[in-house]
Amino acid sequence: MITALDANPILIEQTRGTYVENRHRGAFVIADAEGNIIASAGDIARPVFPRSAIKSIQALAMVTSGAIERFDLTDEELALACASHHGEDVHVLGVTSFLGHVGLSATDLECGAHQPTNARAREALRRAGEEPTALHNNCSGKHSGMLSVARALGVDTHDYATRNHPVQVAVRRAIERVVGGQLSEDRCGTDGCSMPTWAAPLSGFAQGFARMATGEGLPDDLARAAHRIFDAATSHPLLVAGTGHLDTLVMEAFGGRVMQKGGAEGVQCGAIRDKGWGYALKIDDGNMLASQTLVANLLLQFADPDETQRAVLEKFARQTIKNVRGLDVGEMRAAAPLA
Amino acid sequence: MITALDANPILIEQTRGTYVENRHRGAFVIADAEGNIIASAGDIARPVFPRSAIKSIQALAMVTSGAIERFDLTDEELALACASHHGEDVHVLGVTSFLGHVGLSATDLECGAHQPTNARAREALRRAGEEPTALHNNCSGKHSGMLSVARALGVDTHDYATRNHPVQVAVRRAIERVVGGQLSEDRCGTDGCSMPTWAAPLSGFAQGFARMATGEGLPDDLARAAHRIFDAATSHPLLVAGTGHLDTLVMEAFGGRVMQKGGAEGVQCGAIRDKGWGYALKIDDGNMLASQTLVANLLLQFADPDETQRAVLEKFARQTIKNVRGLDVGEMRAAAPLA
Repeated sequence: MITALDANPILIEQTRGTYVENRHRGAFVIADAEGNIIASAGDIARPVFPRSAIKSIQALAMVTSGAIERFDLTDEELALACASHHGEDVHVLGVTSFLGHVGLSATDLECGAHQPTNARAREALRRAGEEPTALHNNCSGKHSGMLSVARALGVDTHDYATRNHPVQVAVRRAIERVVGGQLSEDRCGTDGCSMPTWAAPLSGFAQGFARMATGEGLPDDLARAAHRIFDAATSHPLLVAGTGHLDTLVMEAFGGRVMQKGGAEGVQCGAIRDKGWGYALKIDDGNMLASQTLVANLLLQFADPDETQRAVLEKFARQTIKNVRGLDVGEMRAAAPLA
Repeated sequence: MITALDANPILIEQTRGTYVENRHRGAFVIADAEGNIIASAGDIARPVFPRSAIKSIQALAMVTSGAIERFDLTDEELALACASHHGEDVHVLGVTSFLGHVGLSATDLECGAHQPTNARAREALRRAGEEPTALHNNCSGKHSGMLSVARALGVDTHDYATRNHPVQVAVRRAIERVVGGQLSEDRCGTDGCSMPTWAAPLSGFAQGFARMATGEGLPDDLARAAHRIFDAATSHPLLVAGTGHLDTLVMEAFGGRVMQKGGAEGVQCGAIRDKGWGYALKIDDGNMLASQTLVANLLLQFADPDETQRAVLEKFARQTIKNVRGLDVGEMRAAAPLA
């Protein structure tokens, strides 16, 4: 009854000593806005949940709904809407201000609370004897964006995260226009922050990010919105993730040439803007470190990095594993040349 | 250059909504003491690092060296030597007493310090404003056992965790006698606690655990030692892991019929003692939750559980995934019937 069919290739491996201990299979695809495949491995037609990797696409609803003009939202607020932020002061203050511009507050957020991703921010909360709030949730910027959409649409903000709320209908429509094809109710899950996440083929996300980067294949209004969102995200890399995180460091190093965003369970999406290419990858087993290792290897190979950019990518492309005593006990690395 | 060869089957899957998000490949084997295969899936000849799953085999050196008699060690201390304990008071006090019996103290441990695995123990340390010590390290019981071996052998205790120290030479010899075959320097890694871990075929570990459970195929002295160690571990399940952990709950429920031990990076080993079967499994990508899900399914199917035992196993055989707001968003489960 057990099947070994449809195995994606081993893309990432982790050694212990000189011997391989773990193997991570997956698929990746780099495509242009017309859907031409630049490079790929594995099954790129298999639908996968994009999770937080497509927050920039979800943010399009902020533009199509008129929320951006209505509330005069800033580029920083747009960047926070695209973020899986680390709950540092800059993020918490930014989201608080964002909600204020929309005429709402933290109590309107329906993402739930969790400890800040950033260790120093966690420690600061602990020392102050405070519990984390919904503002610290890595998705609080996206949720603020969703609230701005609800207000712009003139609908009740309650339950804005549920599948059939007008906000989510607008988000779904934006994803379908960018990624192509219809999303299926059979492949809809609930994300960590309680918003719907819709599975679609990896190739669709790669093409979608190429469209976002170039505007090609999008109606004028969406093309302009995508341009603004990408500019906002790549101009404020710290707001999109946090101190020391791959997404932040890569976007800082590439200065607008690369948009990069991770999603839970081993997903990475983004675009090499000057080439007009989008990319998407998923590690089959959901390992995040493996997905970061893979995207760093892909950008090394396909994004023509200069020396500074190369140095940033190489830190993630081959990651040393340390044990409790701080000894180097192995590494995570590409299992083979990727193309 | 990317290869899809030698794919182990998908054994465990994780859903989000009704659609599969992650897939975990791996191999498992159940064998008797002669090496006959009762059931298996995947490549069981591929060497894997057993990590902490074979602490009970490593503990044999405590018997062969005479340390047990010399220091009049208790069953509780033997159980701690087999443990990946959770740093609860009972563990820390037990290891402190263990070291005292050997004439040593926490400063002699070379495992390094880490926060207790148990959340309440972590919180208690934090409230007391204390840093964790080597006693809280989940391997401190094993390391105390290694120190007892060094003292029994009359050798310097320093560097007892390094590959060529007489203690590790004795441990290696015990593993080779139980698992069969020679361990290779090419497949030796450094474990989380800085002791060597030697890769060997999964089938060897399964047969080895059947030998440990039955004594068959072992010289008399090792057979007696194995019997005592297994009795000690299964009589003190809380000492071997911690409150609420699968290893503890399963051994409590089976009352001596099952010895069960997890190891880092997706390994599980153990024995169904009354059947004379040992088992070993490894998830290719190292996911621990997947390895626990798999071993629970295997024990459900092969260990003839009564109603109480079944109830314990079913909690792990199908694990609900909750998101930040506590909503059920998916489950981890067997991907298909296992045999």
